[in-house]
Amino acid sequence: MREEQMVPMIPRQTVNMTDVAQRCGVSIASVSRALRGEPGVSPATRDRIMSAARELAYVVSPEASRLSGGSTGRVGVVVPRIDAWFYATVLAGVAGEFDAVGVDLVLCTLPDSSARHRFFEALPLRRKVDAVIIVSVPLSARERTRLDQLGVPTVQVGGHHPTGGRPWVGIDDELAASQAVGHLLRIGHRDIAMIQAVDQEGTAWAADEARIRGFHDQMTAAGVAEPTVVRVPWGIDGGAHGMETLLSRSRLPSAVFCHSDEIALGALRTLRKAGVAVPQQISVIGVDDHPSAELSELTTVAQPVREQGRLAAVSVLGALQDDGGAMPARTTLPTRLVIRNSTAPPH
Amino acid sequence: MREEQMVPMIPRQTVNMTDVAQRCGVSIASVSRALRGEPGVSPATRDRIMSAARELAYVVSPEASRLSGGSTGRVGVVVPRIDAWFYATVLAGVAGEFDAVGVDLVLCTLPDSSARHRFFEALPLRRKVDAVIIVSVPLSARERTRLDQLGVPTVQVGGHHPTGGRPWVGIDDELAASQAVGHLLRIGHRDIAMIQAVDQEGTAWAADEARIRGFHDQMTAAGVAEPTVVRVPWGIDGGAHGMETLLSRSRLPSAVFCHSDEIALGALRTLRKAGVAVPQQISVIGVDDHPSAELSELTTVAQPVREQGRLAAVSVLGALQDDGGAMPARTTLPTRLVIRNSTAPPH
Repeated sequence: MREEQMVPMIPRQTVNMTDVAQRCGVSIASVSRALRGEPGVSPATRDRIMSAARELAYVVSPEASRLSGGSTGRVGVVVPRIDAWFYATVLAGVAGEFDAVGVDLVLCTLPDSSARHRFFEALPLRRKVDAVIIVSVPLSARERTRLDQLGVPTVQVGGHHPTGGRPWVGIDDELAASQAVGHLLRIGHRDIAMIQAVDQEGTAWAADEARIRGFHDQMTAAGVAEPTVVRVPWGIDGGAHGMETLLSRSRLPSAVFCHSDEIALGALRTLRKAGVAVPQQISVIGVDDHPSAELSELTTVAQPVREQGRLAAVSVLGALQDDGGAMPARTTLPTRLVIRNSTAPPH
Repeated sequence: MREEQMVPMIPRQTVNMTDVAQRCGVSIASVSRALRGEPGVSPATRDRIMSAARELAYVVSPEASRLSGGSTGRVGVVVPRIDAWFYATVLAGVAGEFDAVGVDLVLCTLPDSSARHRFFEALPLRRKVDAVIIVSVPLSARERTRLDQLGVPTVQVGGHHPTGGRPWVGIDDELAASQAVGHLLRIGHRDIAMIQAVDQEGTAWAADEARIRGFHDQMTAAGVAEPTVVRVPWGIDGGAHGMETLLSRSRLPSAVFCHSDEIALGALRTLRKAGVAVPQQISVIGVDDHPSAELSELTTVAQPVREQGRLAAVSVLGALQDDGGAMPARTTLPTRLVIRNSTAPPH
């Protein structure tokens, strides 16, 4: 992945190719060719250059190598944010694979639509990385084109299925929602509400839309045409608000499907404060299997998160080795119903 | 921080200084000088070079600039792991500041002692970054020396106080423990056990040791010479095991000080499963104010985590602007007791 470094103990690069060229009385181009083992330098000159380089403790750097078309030894990873369990866990999966082979991880966060806009217009990773892993970020047609213009392999984790053969690793979010709602239907619930998490800027996130679709499809199939829906911002507080809204209505549904475990954890907090017994008075189910789900005895649909990051890293590293030849198109990882104590048949 | 890039739409660098030099019939050194605005090139030649560069869509790269002693535009951030709330939140604080000024974040994870050993022996960040932020990682004398040998500004977040004037941002972990134990003592507890989190490889982490010291000092001052102590691995499961150990003994303490909120959350899980009422039969307190602490109504000592990352980034960026001149030595952020429903006077 990276050129050998010749001298291990220089605190910082102070010597450059110009110094080596001056010492030998040759051109910088000759130094460059000699250090990279390219033709066009006589053996005698090459020897002189190599010994001058050693003498001056010149360190062949990844950057120098890269200017001549080599690799940077770096891969960019783009996430909406870091301080959320899902993204941090995907990142940990990526980092584990990169560490094993000595690839550097350049981290980009795109917390809002203006950051995303800046990122895709300026392409700050251009010419700095050998490949890019992009996690969950919603992509417009123009943004996909801009990603392609990076000219390096890119792999998507979650979000929209890519067009044009970009590799993708994720789960089937519609299926995950169906698994959750199917569980509630099977144990006898019909009056099922959904607390939907929506982007406050109005951006359509593929995973959100797929989970909403999965909910409505299941409810329609069960003969419930217009189930109750509450829309809230992402996160625990959003879930808490969503449940407050449901509690403020004349009649409580018998079960609530929450967009994610964080929404469900907030909903449980509101129910506990309001003295509503779970699952006796209301069943609550989420999606994710967040570490706090077990603590709160939350029934959920588990997705393998670290594994998504790991497989994306494996895919990218494979593409770099094979020069882009052999990335699998789509890897859909399985999700799994985990039944705990927050769901029970309606009384 | 970074050279202006001249052309925004080239998918990938295919043109280099050699091409520009050939087009103009000048040396690579002249191209380099002209593009960087250095003296030694006549105005006429400079004009020719600039227009050839534009014609060839040559992009001045940070790497090229750096080989001539410029900066990389990158800062390394070293964390033990990413998929833990504390580290992910510190990282988010760092990333926010870096994004604002366009500095790239190179992320290194050192999950165990062998990874730490490899990191400090090989110094993989050497010559790749302008500065390093190192979060919580325990440092031996040799490792501190190796960090200095990176030859770039370094800032520590948490962990041991640095020697030799390296800037440090963190909390007073001993004080945080005292605030927690002091609360238990004030409301009347004397039979207070501690569930201590220890590194399974036996590494001494400064924050852990400080919290243990804070506990023992408070207990000694309250006249309890040898309080009950249980040692467990970090994390929720560790806390759950720790509480199982306490429950297996003949007599339950009236209160438990947990090394961190994750330990406390595990302890609460065990107590709930065992049907032991909190706080009626036992009080539980943690340290951190983890997002799940509020959900579990856990009394804790809150620390500002994102702010530690943000201040470390500000410190590093200041050092890069001032050429290392003006980093504050130590920034100790305040911690704060947050009383919820997991603590009450002993009955």
